[in-house]
Amino acid sequence: LFRSEHVFMSNDRFPTEEEQFEIYRGIVERMNGLPIVIRTFDIGADKQIANHNLPKEINPYLGCRAIRFLLREPSIFRAQLRAILRASLFGNVSLMFPMISSLSELLEAKALVKETRKELESEGLKLEPMRIGCMIEVPSAALISDLLAKECDFLSIGTNDLVQYALAVDRDNHMMSSLYSPTHPSVLRLIKIIVTEANRHGIPVTVCGEIASDPRFTPLLLGLGVHELSVAARYIPIVKNAIRNTSIVAASLLADKAMSLSTADEIDQLLNEEYKHNVPEDCIYNF
Amino acid sequence: LFRSEHVFMSNDRFPTEEEQFEIYRGIVERMNGLPIVIRTFDIGADKQIANHNLPKEINPYLGCRAIRFLLREPSIFRAQLRAILRASLFGNVSLMFPMISSLSELLEAKALVKETRKELESEGLKLEPMRIGCMIEVPSAALISDLLAKECDFLSIGTNDLVQYALAVDRDNHMMSSLYSPTHPSVLRLIKIIVTEANRHGIPVTVCGEIASDPRFTPLLLGLGVHELSVAARYIPIVKNAIRNTSIVAASLLADKAMSLSTADEIDQLLNEEYKHNVPEDCIYNF
Repeated sequence: LFRSEHVFMSNDRFPTEEEQFEIYRGIVERMNGLPIVIRTFDIGADKQIANHNLPKEINPYLGCRAIRFLLREPSIFRAQLRAILRASLFGNVSLMFPMISSLSELLEAKALVKETRKELESEGLKLEPMRIGCMIEVPSAALISDLLAKECDFLSIGTNDLVQYALAVDRDNHMMSSLYSPTHPSVLRLIKIIVTEANRHGIPVTVCGEIASDPRFTPLLLGLGVHELSVAARYIPIVKNAIRNTSIVAASLLADKAMSLSTADEIDQLLNEEYKHNVPEDCIYNF
Repeated sequence: LFRSEHVFMSNDRFPTEEEQFEIYRGIVERMNGLPIVIRTFDIGADKQIANHNLPKEINPYLGCRAIRFLLREPSIFRAQLRAILRASLFGNVSLMFPMISSLSELLEAKALVKETRKELESEGLKLEPMRIGCMIEVPSAALISDLLAKECDFLSIGTNDLVQYALAVDRDNHMMSSLYSPTHPSVLRLIKIIVTEANRHGIPVTVCGEIASDPRFTPLLLGLGVHELSVAARYIPIVKNAIRNTSIVAASLLADKAMSLSTADEIDQLLNEEYKHNVPEDCIYNF
């Protein structure tokens, strides 16, 4: 996963198509044919752009972020899509839209990709088909994941934001941190819905966010039907170890048991006990 | 429904238990034995209290609001509960908690009611049992409405906030108003879940918020199984008229059709057509 907003967060302006193309091509080439997902700009809210005059919002997390920003600024979006499509010639690139909340948004974004592709083809480029997916991080998207799955080649569950919106708890608000519960039963139910629909439509689904890198969640996620985790590099060993120390049967039973519980605390405790049982030697996550 | 925060929004401090008791008793007595629901303080976010030092929040709609505030300020919550319980002796009072997002919050609030009730009884008051319900306005609550229904005597769907959180769109942010869609399929699905669970547990469920007063939504809500609407007084005639101009069979077919559509625009159009068909003489909602 390449979070494209990183190309200019330190910059004071949007990079041009050419500048972006050079950056994306460099990254794609370094992948040496391995698949890479480029996520379009996830900006707004906590990721503000200097010198770009977005109006100040009272609730930025419920405001003009990510795909919402891009669809309102088609010239910026087009430049990025052109740069990504051009870079796709140099490797195995997929495209992902952040913060999709409705089917209309996804279709609008896909239409713009199609247009941009035609434009580039009329300029003489021979483009391969590119896989397109979307982040599921808004409850409305999770609840219509059947409709989105039909229009996507893959889904990616952004659990950090999904928890934030499902529970209506700002994840950066320290006063409310006790209410930010990734083990809330509603979160498990949403993940279950998304994974079930993705599997039913035969497309892959990845789990991102902090819980993907937390080994206590690993058997639960496997048990819910998740086959792909997006893990920060330094957590790969510990998550791999958690996978090796469970069976798919045990994981499935654990998920069933977790889904039958009523509160985040109970589920939290269940995951802790299971982890202690599976990986007793770990002294970081066992406390 | 009595929105208790109205007793002091113009004031510069929290009213005492005595002051609240006098206000609630006055209102309860004026109901002359008719049922009244008193909702505990729904403050924070857009309803700030002058002179009460709540820390400034970056996303107040995702912050310390309503029940969250009350559970952190037990002395304020207790004073309000005591005043409401005392006023309940003068009529038919139910109690409702706003912004519940988990079962734990509901149980904590109910425990405080129980404690307060015992306290008052030890002071010599003879209290009748009081019905307790909660607002469903956070997606996580909607998704666990089966668990909440078991612990409540009634539910009330706060659609304005529910739409806001489900779609992650600040309803006061004019720049984002095109994204604030009460007809988003996910909203219909959430309402359906809540209503189904309330009916299954044999407790009443009310729909509040703007769509409850919008006659184009009336047949849809009836068709989804809703039996009670909380309507602003001036909309009662127009909503009554909408109810009279549909049948429960037609409403149920309409709901099925709406549930099969994929976008807010399609559902919007369906509701408009149905309303034009049912109430062609209305020139306010037909355009």
